[in-house]
Amino acid sequence: MIALTTDFGLVDPWVGIMKGVIATRAPGVPVIDVSHGVPPQDVLAGALVLAHAAPWFPPRTIHVAVADPGVGSERRALCVETERALFVGPDNGLLSLAARAPAVRRIVELADERFFLEPRSRTFHGRDVFAPVAAALATGIDPAALGPERADMEQLALPEPRREGGTVTGEVIYVDRFGNLATNIAPETLAATVACVRLGAARIGGISPSYSAVPRGTLAAVTNSWGLLEIALRDGSAREHLGLGVGATVLVEAR
Amino acid sequence: MIALTTDFGLVDPWVGIMKGVIATRAPGVPVIDVSHGVPPQDVLAGALVLAHAAPWFPPRTIHVAVADPGVGSERRALCVETERALFVGPDNGLLSLAARAPAVRRIVELADERFFLEPRSRTFHGRDVFAPVAAALATGIDPAALGPERADMEQLALPEPRREGGTVTGEVIYVDRFGNLATNIAPETLAATVACVRLGAARIGGISPSYSAVPRGTLAAVTNSWGLLEIALRDGSAREHLGLGVGATVLVEAR
Amino acid sequence: MIALTTDFGLVDPWVGIMKGVIATRAPGVPVIDVSHGVPPQDVLAGALVLAHAAPWFPPRTIHVAVADPGVGSERRALCVETERALFVGPDNGLLSLAARAPAVRRIVELADERFFLEPRSRTFHGRDVFAPVAAALATGIDPAALGPERADMEQLALPEPRREGGTVTGEVIYVDRFGNLATNIAPETLAATVACVRLGAARIGGISPSYSAVPRGTLAAVTNSWGLLEIALRDGSAREHLGLGVGATVLVEAR
Repeated sequence: MIALTTDFGLVDPWVGIMKGVIATRAPGVPVIDVSHGVPPQDVLAGALVLAHAAPWFPPRTIHVAVADPGVGSERRALCVETERALFVGPDNGLLSLAARAPAVRRIVELADERFFLEPRSRTFHGRDVFAPVAAALATGIDPAALGPERADMEQLALPEPRREGGTVTGEVIYVDRFGNLATNIAPETLAATVACVRLGAARIGGISPSYSAVPRGTLAAVTNSWGLLEIALRDGSAREHLGLGVGATVLVEAR
Repeated sequence: MIALTTDFGLVDPWVGIMKGVIATRAPGVPVIDVSHGVPPQDVLAGALVLAHAAPWFPPRTIHVAVADPGVGSERRALCVETERALFVGPDNGLLSLAARAPAVRRIVELADERFFLEPRSRTFHGRDVFAPVAAALATGIDPAALGPERADMEQLALPEPRREGGTVTGEVIYVDRFGNLATNIAPETLAATVACVRLGAARIGGISPSYSAVPRGTLAAVTNSWGLLEIALRDGSAREHLGLGVGATVLVEAR
Repeated sequence: MIALTTDFGLVDPWVGIMKGVIATRAPGVPVIDVSHGVPPQDVLAGALVLAHAAPWFPPRTIHVAVADPGVGSERRALCVETERALFVGPDNGLLSLAARAPAVRRIVELADERFFLEPRSRTFHGRDVFAPVAAALATGIDPAALGPERADMEQLALPEPRREGGTVTGEVIYVDRFGNLATNIAPETLAATVACVRLGAARIGGISPSYSAVPRGTLAAVTNSWGLLEIALRDGSAREHLGLGVGATVLVEAR
């Protein structure tokens, strides 16, 4: 099975063309869309989406990920094998949150042009490099055949929350279509009971078990489906209500 | 076959994650997207979409529907079996237009946690409850195994058109991407020939056989593909032209 | 295999309903989305997308294309067979850039109503005509069974670039989600080395090998994945930067 995570959107035919290439080279292999709504060229958002989606896919899924501002440059292209899956994409950090040590078994640079389309454009490696390589893997090619093994790959620095006295300071790292604001703070790592969550002018009195545990039109702090602290507005959009987005500071104060 | 109707959109990976869960638990079962563009938490729009799409799917399709403002609360989760299909989703009315008496054979509450993911979040039952239950059904589990049978489920009150003399008063209930305004009036139920359709300041002289039966830039009243009276602008958007949307009053006057 | 290119978008269930019809009439046939983001009723954009996507699909793919302002009128519906693929859609030029002489083998008018849904709406031939015809073809029906052969079909006039002295004058014909402006000029057809590309107030000094060959925030002229001259903004949107879109004039000056 092949799963696709890109910033191509669904308005243009880029994803459809990748699927055409896969269907041509690996007939019958199922292809699932993880998301194509990664903001254009937003490598961090793509890495977060891939990292939080990949665990829900079957073992040995071939994940193709593309958010690739450096397409056509000298940036490397990779196949990274982990205990659980294969990840194919550019070496710009996009794969680094999903494929993390110690689960990484090998990192292979995509170098053997026999597995690429010919001629190869310098603007659309999703079609010319990543889709055909994924198709090759799906038909049983060993990653070792794709090119030389590499010792490392680009790593993304995900912002880490800071602790100071009874306060943990983090930030919003992802906003979804509902306007829910996901942070980089994992409630299960907090030592003490949460007394208060603050962001912008808002002050939320503790963590709720679910969105619907607070009255309509009220902000709730919940543990979201990624295990992260999330600020939501019951039956509305916290993003619109607060006017805040990715990068906004969030303070969690212990009781 | 499993079909998905949600308000998750396609920008985030929520739908992709559900498909990953289904592929893990029911390998090889085809999954079709009905729509993920239901407006966030709009149960009525989701119910309309599901009701008008489901008849076009093969018999025994397992429809999973999610528009679920009450996720994580005490609202029940259901599997509803009809003569033709299975419907899985929250008990908030979302299934009630598609699964209507007398076609309903049984209503089962999703209670047996063996069919859920563990641990189960309180924010994403699409992933943790509905996808794995659909996968279980697709692999042959009988609905009776999922939990106790229930006598009823939440019903949505779809606004009904009113008749008064020669006039039928209805309203716009759905607006599509083309800006076409679908109403709750079914032309085939009108006793007399339609002389005039009125909404806002517009006055349309009868029902046209197709969008293209009127000149460009002109409003047309047609019977749409759901069998409903629809107001469209030839080669344009009636929504933008009239500045009207869901809830707008529509009058149909008999000749 | 069936591939779908439409202007239906993914917010409404129109595409899902077409897939339901196909799954009912041709169980197990894979369906791939090329794109459903063709601007509403934009036949030229749909034709471009189809023409540039179809070559990447497996031989004998059945392409269904719908951008159909004349639905329900007397416009014909067609199945066009080429050396490589089958194209099903309205006879309004939508198929004419993908299915071009001399590759066209036969043009068949969809006339035999046995292959349509019954009753047939006059607003949604994607569901009632094109999907069931594609399903019939996928199950082995010969195009000749669908209706009478026709000698020709509607042709779209794609704007052609003009040459005058050392200057080629073309225009923007497609803008993608990244804001890249694709033109109707194919760099490989230019006799001389490009000295300068001009559009609006911008002046770009030659063609770059890739987006990333120019500094961030700088305009680049590249040969895109369709083989066309494209104006892009490194790590940004040329559309927004220049305020230009489809129809904007582009001048290429030889050295």
